[in-house]
Amino acid sequence: MPILTLTTDFGLDDYYVAALKGVVLGLAPGSTIVDVSHQVPAGDVERAGFLLAAAAPWFPAGTIHLAVVDPGVGSARRLLAAVGDEATFVAPDNGLLSRLLPTCRAVRSVTRSDLFLPGGGQTFHGRDRFAPIAAYLLRGEPAADLGPLIADPVVAPHPPPRRETARIVGRVTHVDRYGNLVTDIPASWLPASGWVAEVAGAGRPITRRASHYAEIPAGEPAFVAGSCGTLEISLRGEDLARRWNVERGDEVRVDLDGAAE
Amino acid sequence: MPILTLTTDFGLDDYYVAALKGVVLGLAPGSTIVDVSHQVPAGDVERAGFLLAAAAPWFPAGTIHLAVVDPGVGSARRLLAAVGDEATFVAPDNGLLSRLLPTCRAVRSVTRSDLFLPGGGQTFHGRDRFAPIAAYLLRGEPAADLGPLIADPVVAPHPPPRRETARIVGRVTHVDRYGNLVTDIPASWLPASGWVAEVAGAGRPITRRASHYAEIPAGEPAFVAGSCGTLEISLRGEDLARRWNVERGDEVRVDLDGAAE
Amino acid sequence: MPILTLTTDFGLDDYYVAALKGVVLGLAPGSTIVDVSHQVPAGDVERAGFLLAAAAPWFPAGTIHLAVVDPGVGSARRLLAAVGDEATFVAPDNGLLSRLLPTCRAVRSVTRSDLFLPGGGQTFHGRDRFAPIAAYLLRGEPAADLGPLIADPVVAPHPPPRRETARIVGRVTHVDRYGNLVTDIPASWLPASGWVAEVAGAGRPITRRASHYAEIPAGEPAFVAGSCGTLEISLRGEDLARRWNVERGDEVRVDLDGAAE
Repeated sequence: MPILTLTTDFGLDDYYVAALKGVVLGLAPGSTIVDVSHQVPAGDVERAGFLLAAAAPWFPAGTIHLAVVDPGVGSARRLLAAVGDEATFVAPDNGLLSRLLPTCRAVRSVTRSDLFLPGGGQTFHGRDRFAPIAAYLLRGEPAADLGPLIADPVVAPHPPPRRETARIVGRVTHVDRYGNLVTDIPASWLPASGWVAEVAGAGRPITRRASHYAEIPAGEPAFVAGSCGTLEISLRGEDLARRWNVERGDEVRVDLDGAAE
Repeated sequence: MPILTLTTDFGLDDYYVAALKGVVLGLAPGSTIVDVSHQVPAGDVERAGFLLAAAAPWFPAGTIHLAVVDPGVGSARRLLAAVGDEATFVAPDNGLLSRLLPTCRAVRSVTRSDLFLPGGGQTFHGRDRFAPIAAYLLRGEPAADLGPLIADPVVAPHPPPRRETARIVGRVTHVDRYGNLVTDIPASWLPASGWVAEVAGAGRPITRRASHYAEIPAGEPAFVAGSCGTLEISLRGEDLARRWNVERGDEVRVDLDGAAE
Repeated sequence: MPILTLTTDFGLDDYYVAALKGVVLGLAPGSTIVDVSHQVPAGDVERAGFLLAAAAPWFPAGTIHLAVVDPGVGSARRLLAAVGDEATFVAPDNGLLSRLLPTCRAVRSVTRSDLFLPGGGQTFHGRDRFAPIAAYLLRGEPAADLGPLIADPVVAPHPPPRRETARIVGRVTHVDRYGNLVTDIPASWLPASGWVAEVAGAGRPITRRASHYAEIPAGEPAFVAGSCGTLEISLRGEDLARRWNVERGDEVRVDLDGAAE
């Protein structure tokens, strides 16, 4: 039986995650369930999408990924099942899957209300609708029967990083638990030398690249090639995001004609 | 093999949850263990009972539910095994199972000290006593052999909500991670119109009912039918409990002759 | 298939734990994975070692324990696989396994780079190197083929508690989530009477021993025999570490000629 991963904003203090898992295990006994995170800030669809896109490639082929960050629960927003070669993604149609849809060959709006649990109100579709959909897929039943193909899933804009003659412009796409600033700039774009970088409006220029965290001189920010294949900005042993007061979305500029500060 | 769920106040920062699971997996190999929550505030028996009662109905028949919030660990308090048609509950006899005992047909005081792990002091019965009891049940051994039936388990008072001619009176029984106020008032009790409600001493009158969170006008509190079948009071996109400084136990009154404020 | 436990400082807010598990489940399908904790403070090798040493004895023989708190990730620090009679431990060579190495008969430096995942930078060896090593062991492949035996693993100093004629001197080795002060003094060392104890520079004298938490008089600190077999100092229903501002490493002295304060 394939694996199910879960990404939600349900938190770990409440009964929500357990109820969802109970439904899955009742409908698809013996399933292996792996938590990506339930600590997504309430309603933070963007962060959920980042985490799922970062985790999904590391799971075996056939894994089902369910993500429920769903401020529109109970409204007319659609429920998506998106099938790729390696994985199937189930989530509300609110942009959460924006980073993953390009890897999918069929995106369906789930209309099989016969699968949904009766009763229970309109506030917990994670348990009442998404869990039964995930269980259906875990049992190996055909995604094609879940509902019609759609061509217009909600896609959140993710302006790609730009490489120009004299500069690279990207963004902080994620702040990790160590306070590292994960950017969307591919690590391979950074030349060996002759550049200087900064996070817009924050901190001080970055002029160093390190191969790993322990190589960063104390007190000096540096780029490293991070675990998502993009540049990270890190300060050894310190929470750089807090120190510089940087948030997701802040612009990162690399001046390719740059001299050291 | 049936499923084991765990509800504790052990937290996720320590080794306690893992030690308990290690004992279970050693004595009942191959068990599936699902966490309800380990983030129950230290000693908060009432919250543990709420979470377990909310989660348990969603698990398949035969599930074993172990809850260890046990300020009396090591004292003479009894260890309970309560068997219902759908599930078996194991917990200290301190009121934690109050909401679940009405669903059970046999409540036993576990006296099988031969099952308990030797040594280890009197501070961690979760590992040394409760885990072996859970493993015994997971292996399919008979609950009837665990100890004598008892008729006087500790039951915490939960005054039920009251429906009178001119008003409904209930309580906030739970504050969830989004700050929604979960009440004990059945959603079916609220008439379609002609009412006005308030949380005693907090916030402002509630005059609106929404079918789901996204339907709530910004800035206006509203009732929704929540995932436990009771009314919840919610403020879209905001933590209402924090905003109004509401706590579990606060009274909720619905005036059935009410006009809008 | 044996069990894998995980102890890391990855936190629960990020995708790191899931990516590691995905790699393990891809390379060793059907493995049972148990979290010890992912909430180790960033870089706190000492705490990770304590948690793992406290949890490991409770798992069945054959369990693989992977711990990744690795501030030196990407540097030349070695990757260890340490085999004992009951368990195998995998961790960076940074002192994390200090408490466990005495139980191991063979400590190897893992040099099988053919097992490592390609690409991915030098920042996430948990996913790219440690997870494949753990999966290799979970599949039952021989630890002896992982790399050469070494005789000089990094060992952090843990000065043992001392029992002298007139006093016992130990340390606070752990502060648990309830604020109990776990010491390294074996519970069996404390005489029945005639002693008085203190935490250096903190709180007030301890003159009482209780058999369990609920027996401690309100407001009075007491020793109890804790779940690791050592003395704990506890204040019933209160966070003693916070009240007294005690930290791990603080000295605990028991005067064996002591009269009550």
